[in-house]
Amino acid sequence: MAVYTDITDAELEALLAGYDLGPPLAFKGIAEGVENSNFLLETTRGRYVLTVYERRVKADDLPFFLGLMAWLAEHGFPSARPVADRGGALLTTARGKPAAIVEFMQGLSVRRPTLAHCREAGGGMAWMHLAADGFPMRRPNDLGQAAWRGLFAGLGPAADALKPGLAATIDADLQTIEGAWPRALPAGVVHADLFPDNVFFSAGAFAAAIDFYFACEDLLAYDLAVGLNAWCFEPDGTFNVTNARAFVAGYEQRRPLSKDERAALSVLAWGAAMRFFLTRLADWGSQPDGALVRPKDPMEYERKLAVHRAAHAAGGLMLFDA
Amino acid sequence: MAVYTDITDAELEALLAGYDLGPPLAFKGIAEGVENSNFLLETTRGRYVLTVYERRVKADDLPFFLGLMAWLAEHGFPSARPVADRGGALLTTARGKPAAIVEFMQGLSVRRPTLAHCREAGGGMAWMHLAADGFPMRRPNDLGQAAWRGLFAGLGPAADALKPGLAATIDADLQTIEGAWPRALPAGVVHADLFPDNVFFSAGAFAAAIDFYFACEDLLAYDLAVGLNAWCFEPDGTFNVTNARAFVAGYEQRRPLSKDERAALSVLAWGAAMRFFLTRLADWGSQPDGALVRPKDPMEYERKLAVHRAAHAAGGLMLFDA
Repeated sequence: MAVYTDITDAELEALLAGYDLGPPLAFKGIAEGVENSNFLLETTRGRYVLTVYERRVKADDLPFFLGLMAWLAEHGFPSARPVADRGGALLTTARGKPAAIVEFMQGLSVRRPTLAHCREAGGGMAWMHLAADGFPMRRPNDLGQAAWRGLFAGLGPAADALKPGLAATIDADLQTIEGAWPRALPAGVVHADLFPDNVFFSAGAFAAAIDFYFACEDLLAYDLAVGLNAWCFEPDGTFNVTNARAFVAGYEQRRPLSKDERAALSVLAWGAAMRFFLTRLADWGSQPDGALVRPKDPMEYERKLAVHRAAHAAGGLMLFDA
Repeated sequence: MAVYTDITDAELEALLAGYDLGPPLAFKGIAEGVENSNFLLETTRGRYVLTVYERRVKADDLPFFLGLMAWLAEHGFPSARPVADRGGALLTTARGKPAAIVEFMQGLSVRRPTLAHCREAGGGMAWMHLAADGFPMRRPNDLGQAAWRGLFAGLGPAADALKPGLAATIDADLQTIEGAWPRALPAGVVHADLFPDNVFFSAGAFAAAIDFYFACEDLLAYDLAVGLNAWCFEPDGTFNVTNARAFVAGYEQRRPLSKDERAALSVLAWGAAMRFFLTRLADWGSQPDGALVRPKDPMEYERKLAVHRAAHAAGGLMLFDA
């Protein structure tokens, strides 16, 4: 939860003067998203979320993110539709920072996903992949596999401080993952951060995906791998293969995987765990200034790496019947 | 802003099972109130705020606060009406802490009140005083004038650390205020914390008061004095007597003050500044555990005390024409 930027009533009034949304009826900071500041905004026209983008989001990437959200909503996927100002722009400025107003999406996120939630979330992800097909803008994944060695450079001591010997283990992992990484799978626009707090359910059914601020182009099955890590581990660190199979089955109901995608999924999940381990390791101890959030524990993903390392040695995660 | 207690989807479901509000459609932590955790809760029946009471609020006082909010709403004053559970109770439990669900109130608070806001807020306060008349429950003001010497006991070194010599000044203030404190003015239920963030406006008009968790019995004019301190000082620390006169005039449009109340208002405002100085001084440096808020600066109220000290020596705040 985070509200980094404070918006006064006068600033809100100035902001809304550029929109055709009517006068504000309610305005409250909400604890949603980790990277940006979010506000519930109710006007005579409807309910919206004002997002003020903080330092982690590059302003240059915002047209891609907002354009994607608009595209998805236009193509029937439940993503918050950005609201254009009177001049037609989706992007505005609040307190000197880039900001956008998007539709308020109903639904609740879940903390402890059940098998049914995993199946729904997998289906929602495939729906997003299909709906994004044809989206004309491009954004390479700057946190993708090619970036991991560079991300780890200089973090060896931090890794060893977490756990003696961890730096050497990560180095070896990086090498193995690089060698086993698939190159020729279907690629497209991926969410790249579809954790349970970014998915809303309504009466148990997938209702919306939010927080597209890591979306980019990458292998579609890599997105699925991110999801397996985010949704299918128990709090004690064990991998719930039943839930993972449900996640994949939900995905395949909308977009069946190729044989090569299925074969690559275990190493993709290992790599996806590496990506989140590395960014958490980099954030660990470097608390953003003035932020009222704590960095996420990299050890959660260190344990996931260990699961994937062992699974790789044993022939994979057993996600499919032989 | 504060969300101290985290409520999971499973905990919310368990909580709502006791109510007749229908299934949840949305649930988000909101940055409202400083002492408690607040959540926007939307169900098929309507929109509500779930408040989880944190350590500062005594559980024994909650029936008074919730009873008062219900009474005020029943008597036409715009206060969030608490929602009773299926057994008729206004109070419930969330994650082992006392909690309550109240109606969602529309409106926006203002950061920099104008003269018009001050007039409206004064009128809203008088409205509350009149609407509370007849409320049968009792709660003495444990932060009232009689408590201040005790609150300051032991805080002398903290005061001197803020500003050398401040402890002796506060001691002298306490003695002067005590001697000049009025005893026989009209008393009743007061909000006791009607700061701008606890007042909502709609199209410029007073729309609601929230956060009754300091409400108690005290002199009605003391509440007005708290309001003058909270609404009528400029960011540079000067007293805006024009706005203060508007606040009082707004109040008097609904509840005219007696001659004695008018005469006492300056010393009541001095005392009200003392109350907030003392609690902020006590909180300063004693950050609550795990709280994602910073304590409020006691020096803001030290400067207000200086204004009132000087005004007292000069014959008062000049709130009324001679």
